[in-house]
Amino acid sequence: MAQVQRMSKLMVKTLRDDPADAETLSHKLLVRAGYVRRNAAGIWSWLPLGKKVLDNISRVVREEMDAIGAQEVLLPALLPKEAYEASGRWAEYGDLLFRLKDRKGADYLLGPTHEEIFTQTVKDQCSSYKDLPVMLYQIQTKYRDEARPRSGVLRGREFQMKDSYSFDTTDEGLAESYALHRAAYIKIFNRLGLDHRIVSAVSGAMGGSASEEFLAPAAAGEDTFVDCPNCDYAANTEAVTFKAAVAPADAPGAVEELDTPDTPTIETLAAHLGVPASATLKNLLVKIDGEIVAVGVPGDREVDLGKLGEQLAPAVVELVTAEDFEGRPDLVRGYVGPQGLDKVRYIADPRIAAGTAWITGANKPDTHAKNVVAGRDFEVDDYIDVVVVEEGDPCPNCGTGLKMDRAIEIGHIFQLGRKYADTFQLDVLGQQGKPVRVTMGSYGIGVSRAVAALAEQTADDKGLSWPKEIAPADVHVVAAGKALQTELALSVSEQLNAVGVRVLVDDRPGVSPGVKFTDAELIGVPQILVAGRRSAEGVLELKDRRTGEREELTVEEAIARLTA
Amino acid sequence: MAQVQRMSKLMVKTLRDDPADAETLSHKLLVRAGYVRRNAAGIWSWLPLGKKVLDNISRVVREEMDAIGAQEVLLPALLPKEAYEASGRWAEYGDLLFRLKDRKGADYLLGPTHEEIFTQTVKDQCSSYKDLPVMLYQIQTKYRDEARPRSGVLRGREFQMKDSYSFDTTDEGLAESYALHRAAYIKIFNRLGLDHRIVSAVSGAMGGSASEEFLAPAAAGEDTFVDCPNCDYAANTEAVTFKAAVAPADAPGAVEELDTPDTPTIETLAAHLGVPASATLKNLLVKIDGEIVAVGVPGDREVDLGKLGEQLAPAVVELVTAEDFEGRPDLVRGYVGPQGLDKVRYIADPRIAAGTAWITGANKPDTHAKNVVAGRDFEVDDYIDVVVVEEGDPCPNCGTGLKMDRAIEIGHIFQLGRKYADTFQLDVLGQQGKPVRVTMGSYGIGVSRAVAALAEQTADDKGLSWPKEIAPADVHVVAAGKALQTELALSVSEQLNAVGVRVLVDDRPGVSPGVKFTDAELIGVPQILVAGRRSAEGVLELKDRRTGEREELTVEEAIARLTA
Repeated sequence: MAQVQRMSKLMVKTLRDDPADAETLSHKLLVRAGYVRRNAAGIWSWLPLGKKVLDNISRVVREEMDAIGAQEVLLPALLPKEAYEASGRWAEYGDLLFRLKDRKGADYLLGPTHEEIFTQTVKDQCSSYKDLPVMLYQIQTKYRDEARPRSGVLRGREFQMKDSYSFDTTDEGLAESYALHRAAYIKIFNRLGLDHRIVSAVSGAMGGSASEEFLAPAAAGEDTFVDCPNCDYAANTEAVTFKAAVAPADAPGAVEELDTPDTPTIETLAAHLGVPASATLKNLLVKIDGEIVAVGVPGDREVDLGKLGEQLAPAVVELVTAEDFEGRPDLVRGYVGPQGLDKVRYIADPRIAAGTAWITGANKPDTHAKNVVAGRDFEVDDYIDVVVVEEGDPCPNCGTGLKMDRAIEIGHIFQLGRKYADTFQLDVLGQQGKPVRVTMGSYGIGVSRAVAALAEQTADDKGLSWPKEIAPADVHVVAAGKALQTELALSVSEQLNAVGVRVLVDDRPGVSPGVKFTDAELIGVPQILVAGRRSAEGVLELKDRRTGEREELTVEEAIARLTA
Repeated sequence: MAQVQRMSKLMVKTLRDDPADAETLSHKLLVRAGYVRRNAAGIWSWLPLGKKVLDNISRVVREEMDAIGAQEVLLPALLPKEAYEASGRWAEYGDLLFRLKDRKGADYLLGPTHEEIFTQTVKDQCSSYKDLPVMLYQIQTKYRDEARPRSGVLRGREFQMKDSYSFDTTDEGLAESYALHRAAYIKIFNRLGLDHRIVSAVSGAMGGSASEEFLAPAAAGEDTFVDCPNCDYAANTEAVTFKAAVAPADAPGAVEELDTPDTPTIETLAAHLGVPASATLKNLLVKIDGEIVAVGVPGDREVDLGKLGEQLAPAVVELVTAEDFEGRPDLVRGYVGPQGLDKVRYIADPRIAAGTAWITGANKPDTHAKNVVAGRDFEVDDYIDVVVVEEGDPCPNCGTGLKMDRAIEIGHIFQLGRKYADTFQLDVLGQQGKPVRVTMGSYGIGVSRAVAALAEQTADDKGLSWPKEIAPADVHVVAAGKALQTELALSVSEQLNAVGVRVLVDDRPGVSPGVKFTDAELIGVPQILVAGRRSAEGVLELKDRRTGEREELTVEEAIARLTA
């Protein structure tokens, strides 16, 4: 049987002040309430209370993964280079990878995610279509050498993650494994009490097709997502795709040159002409695999280079430098226009739809042109959605103005397809006796990050405030201080423990009732039971941590209430 | 509720042949039965069945640690160098440490054991004697870059360990924390069904005073220990201390030189003189921190350089080379004797007791001397027990001839004392208002190693054979093959699962009964329940994996038996 946790014995040191380096609420409170301790940038220790919360989350995750038939394994974190070289990620991950050598000089890495190793495992263990589908998962320590580890356990360099992988012989099978995970994730986050949204996502370095993110809205979140107030559309800002704009019905007149001295920027141009920036066409020059390319967006919008890079990968996108203009008299800095840029590939945002007219550079110093019409005066080589999404942009589904919110990514599900199976030639013998290439899914939940996300969503100005299933205890019993009160607190604690209620009791001698109450609210167990003034009568006060509601109850009533 | 584990779904691939590189029984069987998979030398994956066994062991360890009031935490595995530099272990560990740099070039290591970090944690969290004693533990992945990783999970480079640390203000407190751990370890190993011995040990690189090892006798063990058949003495061979020999009552005559051409070794000398090797004195020259020192042992014994090094640490012990004899005419190779070696420090085994007489080198080529008496003809600077212990050596307690056995080290408990507290100035405010230096204990259990140790001790020629509490299931139900048999097997499996029995059922279609029986014995679940010939009557066969005893039972009887 579990034991009553006594604060007099428990290693928990609460702090009145926020740690100096803490920016986010969860970082401040988890440190102040004695849940975690920093060992180095992005490297944390889980102290006794924190370990309990981490374990509670892991338990929920494990139960729901088991329920969909996923099998738990434990793969190493220290991995030989070869598999990651085969997949190309040894190079792709760059500085994000912790790399090391063993005593013989062989290269190893600390696993940031395990697609390669799970693929090898299944190749080794499964040989027939009868062995599939199989879903495997682990709850394991992962390593990523983040450039800016911050926000406490929200973005660590060593962190706990549940990662799972599905292996199917058919696309329909993959879709089913994906759907099982999606449903399990919804259950998990609901049980954890995490408010969350499921959004479309780009797959990034994972390499795959369909993918969705589970986001927990929170001010401290590092992700931005858009949300349609009208329909159910929601997406990571990088995944929002804009539908082609519709050109106005009336065609403008012919191109006219404008004398626009000293107007190399959109701001100076718009001011000079007295037009809105949105009437102008901004042409950004970039290098794609070394070739100069122009990217056109409306003058009031920004190019999202990350989004451009994602869509052109594996091509490498760089900004042009002054040297790139040498020997290129056709490229007039500050006055580039797509009309007459014959030797340059032109990529445009879908807002530059055929028939739309723009004010843009005339490819001459101090000169612009108006009535420059897409499809008439210039051709677009590729339409790619590359603008930074903004609040109020139309929903791709219904056209309503989108809302933007910040969130913490707590889960991610991918239909990887055959990328890794191709790399490692993962085939099984099919029903027809011929080899069938396996198709994979990959699914992650940030377990340690979920602790921070929950703290962000549930804390208030008094401290942490955990949902019942995740809290380090069900009830925090406070002995106000006198011997009689401590006796009652310990007695009711033992009685509650005996009927399966998880109890934390503050029996610290010589600590004032005020400090104990403050600590109880900081620690955030959902129910606080105080053995105070009416202890002699056997009456306790039960306080709801979240609502602050109080009620006086006898021991029997308190036990009945807490076991209800 | 837990689910029935179906072999048709479970990722388990059994092998008929031993892996080519496997030397030990546990290595062979854990791979063949699909429990583990090798990723690199000393780096292993735990597959679904293996993960269950690992979890079962962790659960037992956790329950007994909680029962003595130890608090579970989780500290990082990736650790900044500084703390290990402060303790000196950054250098001491040498090649055993996995070292790496982060993107900023800062040095890190993968934790081999966590004394430093726990000391820092307690320094941060505890400030008063009221906060102590405290015992903390974690079950965590550890890293040691072993020179010869082998024997499967018995000696891995990445492995699972339970490590705990106690912090007390007094020596009596430390003794109590040590005693609590010792008692908990006995309970743990008894619950695991691990036959074990507790032996005296030397502390090695941990640096401390009292220490004991828990050894699981097994032929595959890398540790040798001695065991007294008469009293309760048992010790790691490196920790055996020999009591000084008693010199014979009758003093021999004066030293006499012997002409002994071509006898530079003990063998050639003993043969030439026709005396036993034990009558001669062997003098090994070593360098201790660069200074040449002679070490004397009886001619029939070997010097244990490891033991010598342990006892002289931190001094560095090296063998002499030919160059060291240059300019040293006093050192006559092959004919060194302690008499007349004025400029050389002389260390001797306690067997070279004062008054004992020896045949030894005369410090002249081709010449030995007899009647060379310790304390009369030469002085011993230091008596240190440095001989390799041998079967039949007298027990230090009672003098009975010792037995020697091989074993696996499964646990180790240390009274560290104040070594780390001194390094990190870990003080708490004492009862008298003055700072008190804290004293520590350190306690480890090899969790993944315990899996291998259990396999070594319990397996037979048919395969693994787990104790009930540790097995991946309570019962392995085998459906012999026909539809009716599979139906009965699945039905009884669900009934057993419903009453809390952990079930693995072999429902694989198209697999012969013979293969299923062989696999069941290889996998080693303690009870095997077969739905075979008499399935139509609802009669099953229950077989005890270990004894092979069989019995026919109805479904009701089988359920009653398995829930008894």
